[in-house]
Amino acid sequence: MEPSEKLRRNTSSVRVTAVKGAFVSERPDRLATEEPMEIRVSGPGQEAASVAVTMRTPGGDFELAAGFLFTEGLVSGRDEVAGVSYCEDLPDDEQLFNVVTVRLNRPWDADAAKRNFYATSSCGICGKASLDEVEVHCSPVAAGPRVSADVVRSLPDKLREGQRVFDQTGGLHAAGLFDAEGVLVSLREDVGRHNAVDKLVGEALLADALPLTDRVLQVSGRISFEIVQKAAMGGISIISAISAPSSLAVEAAERLGVTVLGFVRDDRFNIYSNPQRLVM
Amino acid sequence: MEPSEKLRRNTSSVRVTAVKGAFVSERPDRLATEEPMEIRVSGPGQEAASVAVTMRTPGGDFELAAGFLFTEGLVSGRDEVAGVSYCEDLPDDEQLFNVVTVRLNRPWDADAAKRNFYATSSCGICGKASLDEVEVHCSPVAAGPRVSADVVRSLPDKLREGQRVFDQTGGLHAAGLFDAEGVLVSLREDVGRHNAVDKLVGEALLADALPLTDRVLQVSGRISFEIVQKAAMGGISIISAISAPSSLAVEAAERLGVTVLGFVRDDRFNIYSNPQRLVM
Repeated sequence: MEPSEKLRRNTSSVRVTAVKGAFVSERPDRLATEEPMEIRVSGPGQEAASVAVTMRTPGGDFELAAGFLFTEGLVSGRDEVAGVSYCEDLPDDEQLFNVVTVRLNRPWDADAAKRNFYATSSCGICGKASLDEVEVHCSPVAAGPRVSADVVRSLPDKLREGQRVFDQTGGLHAAGLFDAEGVLVSLREDVGRHNAVDKLVGEALLADALPLTDRVLQVSGRISFEIVQKAAMGGISIISAISAPSSLAVEAAERLGVTVLGFVRDDRFNIYSNPQRLVM
Repeated sequence: MEPSEKLRRNTSSVRVTAVKGAFVSERPDRLATEEPMEIRVSGPGQEAASVAVTMRTPGGDFELAAGFLFTEGLVSGRDEVAGVSYCEDLPDDEQLFNVVTVRLNRPWDADAAKRNFYATSSCGICGKASLDEVEVHCSPVAAGPRVSADVVRSLPDKLREGQRVFDQTGGLHAAGLFDAEGVLVSLREDVGRHNAVDKLVGEALLADALPLTDRVLQVSGRISFEIVQKAAMGGISIISAISAPSSLAVEAAERLGVTVLGFVRDDRFNIYSNPQRLVM
């Protein structure tokens, strides 16, 4: 079980000095919590080995661990996962919820994983090599849904409305999964842009609901190469953002058959790849 | 020498389908370039060893390599650096400008660096351990400058005005160094939030102008733990942002004596730590 909302501490209380014009006042404020989380993996009878440490906002930690391993190509599906848990033998209460172990049904080859991880996440040393690597680990997505321009235009406001931590803190990345009619299915927030996507994919993995072929992903910021890679690993064929994609994000989307929509603001947006999924 | 503006390719041309209301049109567009860059390090007579691969926007590559090594605690100053160059023996033109080698005047212990790097950048497994690690590698900053509220309020617009790549692409992180009177001294843009800061610190390192005690850092987005860590390594004592800091960013700033200002918008801002540097 994940800890209660209270223990997950996704916001933190601080006191700030607020300056407005010539007025200065002290008041309480809430910040998005940022804490490191270590992801460990073990096979049957094996000791858990550390795979990565990521700075994240607590909450959805099991989803983040599972999603990260899946989108980085280190775990292939729900059937490989025997369980996910916090490390229970740590001496320090504060550390207790910052170490997550994913137990697999199969042996875990830490060295092979390290090589694989390097290849996937560190990419090549040029954009083309990165794209080639992505293709090795990630098949082009399925045809997926078609969406109307009106649905696309409605996504940013719906994402924003669902952002509970943002409401309290005013600054956090978010990623939301929608169906083709624009109904919000799931939403995650995190200080790390790709952590929010990993949490969505991890939630689906743990529910054995991958691939996310019928879903549309809306993100709060820009679209980087890594966001396209992670979304495509989850089978998502449409990614929409309120800001711009990068050059490599669009190239990856073209290779993987993903539709990238950017600058979704007011009544406008741009289609950067695979426009066939838009119903005009 | 770094390559010409043209070769640095910090923007890329694409064609987009623009949707506005019921109107659909095709038009050319420019995106911020995202490309991987590998950082290698060598000592005298040693073969260059790979240290990290980061996704970045080309331009300021030597600064990024030098700045990264410095802010991660792997290189201690300008006097250790014999030279920085692109890898010239790569077969592929496209890769030529994506591998940067920093040659040191001293032997490079790749294993020790790996341990050190792990400790610094991967932090502990809780916020407190991360903060302890930061203190090992990073001394509290000097008293630094004092700034007026009017100067603070002027920074976001000045940063925005200086963003050349943003002007063309509409989406990119930026970090700017200002003096205490609010005059822009240096500005860097990058798809990666901390790359922009590494480029600024790296520029100062290569010019033997560290620490940046008299400077104020303005960033375009939020302030994460890593931004505070990297700025403090560069000796910067005031960090200002148009959005929110994270909880751990504020805790690190308190430990390191850094002033963190957030939500600098219109005539307002919040002071999260060390308000003594503000002249009201």
